[in-house]
Amino acid sequence: MSLISPDGGMLVDLVVPDTQRSERMAETINLPRLEITDYDLQWIHILSEGWASPLRGFMRESAFLQSSHFNAIRQEDGSWVNQSIPITLDVSSGDRERLIDSPRIALCFNGTPVAILIDPEFYAHQKEERVARTVGLTHVGHPTVERIMAMGNYLVGGELEVLAPITYDDGLDHYRCSPAELRAEFERRGADAVYAFQLRNPVHNGHALLMNDTRRQLKAEGFRNPILLLHPLGGWTKEDDVPLDVRMKQHDAVLEDGILDPETTIVAIFPSPMIYGGPTEVQWHAKARINAGADHYIVGRDPAGMNHPETDAPIYDPFHGMKVLQSAPGLERLKIIEFRFAAYDTVAEQMSFFDPSRADDFLTISGSKMREYARNGESPPKGFMGGKAWQVVADYYDSLTDG
Amino acid sequence: MSLISPDGGMLVDLVVPDTQRSERMAETINLPRLEITDYDLQWIHILSEGWASPLRGFMRESAFLQSSHFNAIRQEDGSWVNQSIPITLDVSSGDRERLIDSPRIALCFNGTPVAILIDPEFYAHQKEERVARTVGLTHVGHPTVERIMAMGNYLVGGELEVLAPITYDDGLDHYRCSPAELRAEFERRGADAVYAFQLRNPVHNGHALLMNDTRRQLKAEGFRNPILLLHPLGGWTKEDDVPLDVRMKQHDAVLEDGILDPETTIVAIFPSPMIYGGPTEVQWHAKARINAGADHYIVGRDPAGMNHPETDAPIYDPFHGMKVLQSAPGLERLKIIEFRFAAYDTVAEQMSFFDPSRADDFLTISGSKMREYARNGESPPKGFMGGKAWQVVADYYDSLTDG
Repeated sequence: MSLISPDGGMLVDLVVPDTQRSERMAETINLPRLEITDYDLQWIHILSEGWASPLRGFMRESAFLQSSHFNAIRQEDGSWVNQSIPITLDVSSGDRERLIDSPRIALCFNGTPVAILIDPEFYAHQKEERVARTVGLTHVGHPTVERIMAMGNYLVGGELEVLAPITYDDGLDHYRCSPAELRAEFERRGADAVYAFQLRNPVHNGHALLMNDTRRQLKAEGFRNPILLLHPLGGWTKEDDVPLDVRMKQHDAVLEDGILDPETTIVAIFPSPMIYGGPTEVQWHAKARINAGADHYIVGRDPAGMNHPETDAPIYDPFHGMKVLQSAPGLERLKIIEFRFAAYDTVAEQMSFFDPSRADDFLTISGSKMREYARNGESPPKGFMGGKAWQVVADYYDSLTDG
Repeated sequence: MSLISPDGGMLVDLVVPDTQRSERMAETINLPRLEITDYDLQWIHILSEGWASPLRGFMRESAFLQSSHFNAIRQEDGSWVNQSIPITLDVSSGDRERLIDSPRIALCFNGTPVAILIDPEFYAHQKEERVARTVGLTHVGHPTVERIMAMGNYLVGGELEVLAPITYDDGLDHYRCSPAELRAEFERRGADAVYAFQLRNPVHNGHALLMNDTRRQLKAEGFRNPILLLHPLGGWTKEDDVPLDVRMKQHDAVLEDGILDPETTIVAIFPSPMIYGGPTEVQWHAKARINAGADHYIVGRDPAGMNHPETDAPIYDPFHGMKVLQSAPGLERLKIIEFRFAAYDTVAEQMSFFDPSRADDFLTISGSKMREYARNGESPPKGFMGGKAWQVVADYYDSLTDG
């Protein structure tokens, strides 16, 4: 298994080795403390396992500026590593004053130390400018704008020592494989190509068609054993997205239904929070998967997009995500596979790639349409989704109606 | 004289050669026309002379996206050329429909063809997202936000053939040297270093101190003949900035006053409009000067910054401009010289670099303070500005009071 990160260094692992854990825990007793949120904890998780490798902690100002302006960070050898999303820790003015002279700070979640922040660098949090550059709007109806505008007026950067692997005890931790664990699994399976599919929705047979067709393509290109990383995002999402536990159950059911082949598919959780940052965020989704060992990345239509809180039209051009990925600094080693739109083909009675020459034969089944089927106790058309997989979705929408 | 541009290609020159001019002019008679604004014309001027080299016309979508997201454009050999400011031409939906099938379009200013746009590519103008990414806010009280939000809903990219050199007939055209002309002049003077100073204000003796001190530094570093490019911005500026003709007269007076040495100083106009885009724009200011032959660039405090239309506090951190310049892709060959703040030293009775150990001895003389002196018929303290140079400024402020 290769643990070389894309910058040529080792894949970052910030978790304190077992042998040093008790010593580090003891140290925290005497350190000044900073309480963090569950959102901050998700980023510590991300950093701790090297998804953002070579980043070794919350961004210092230099990295923050490069990420905001260039979506990439220059390495000592002059090369660029992609990092389109700033990964930061905010603090209040009061906490900054209290902590500014501390060389080490214990970061605590619900009162328990989870990491030590080393040699902290405090700098002003230019919140409006930050959201403008990262999500391309400043309207507080956008969930990331809302979140960041409510944050502290300072950021604090510094390297991290993470006291123990981050877990959530929600019954899903076994899906949370680190980049190193994923690479080991790809090696164990003898993968000679790894293609990643990021999603935050139930998998229907159109998705499956795309994933299976990608495998076929890769084999036609000469790869003997392409492995699919079906990699749902598991960090914070907005309230109207389908919850993670339902999605994991649904993805497992897709494999049970035989729609994806368990032999050539790995289902795991990508622990990042969502930003809803469109073409900026999709670079982060792709870059993290390079660190996890992927060499091919399927990009969807309007990736990480959402509708504008004022106009309700898509904020981002639906093709910008793909175009930005294809030219982004530091993603050169990733082959970008363009999402082909699939819809329900009423003639073939299955999901097929959309054919504009017979557009009337196709039916688009959206999330709200699925919700409607479930509410009415109906099934979607045969071939839209595997039976067990549909049951998971139907039960979920049912539970909403009850509530 | 070297005409190699930073990408390793030739410095771009889009002006049609004399021998082909009449033929091209004749061609425009039969072309569909698009009327452009004086602002568009300033960008055609910029493009025509290679300030934005290797860009050969208004940005196509790929260049626009790379500029917006990465502040740089990837070249065929994989290297990055800095281009932080999108250079674009907007069109209305109606003009797009009218022109979408035209392989060549005549761009006309006040009805006269000035350039031919070749193989046009129309794409949606994501205006809110664009201003967010480029100026870091979306408030229409910012002049560039106001301008762009009022533009057409489409952009059109394509290469340009510019029918004749762009001139303004305002008595200042002799200051508008092209990058090629500047390089020739540096060579004629035997420059072995060229340091550029961008400004859009009158030059006081603090600026002069900095420029002269930079020359001293460069000589100490071993350069025999460093030449200063005093390079005021000459395109569109907001109304409360001092007008270009006054500034040019004032700069000439500074040389007449002997405060800058005419032997080692070239005064010329940089024909770009202002964006007021802070750390994003300062990269453009620096990059254009590389094309003009500069190898050193003096960066000020809060370059290209302005106050927030709502809070009246600076939009950008005053040091971000310098920090972003020092790490920006495609500016590696430019040595960044940090602006040292000079103020009026009441003890030495001259402008001196600020000394925090005797802060009380220093007096800051702002634009509004200068305006006050002029209104009251007073002179600023001796040593603040040369006599002839002050007279130009005083006459200008006087004319405002009269009006």
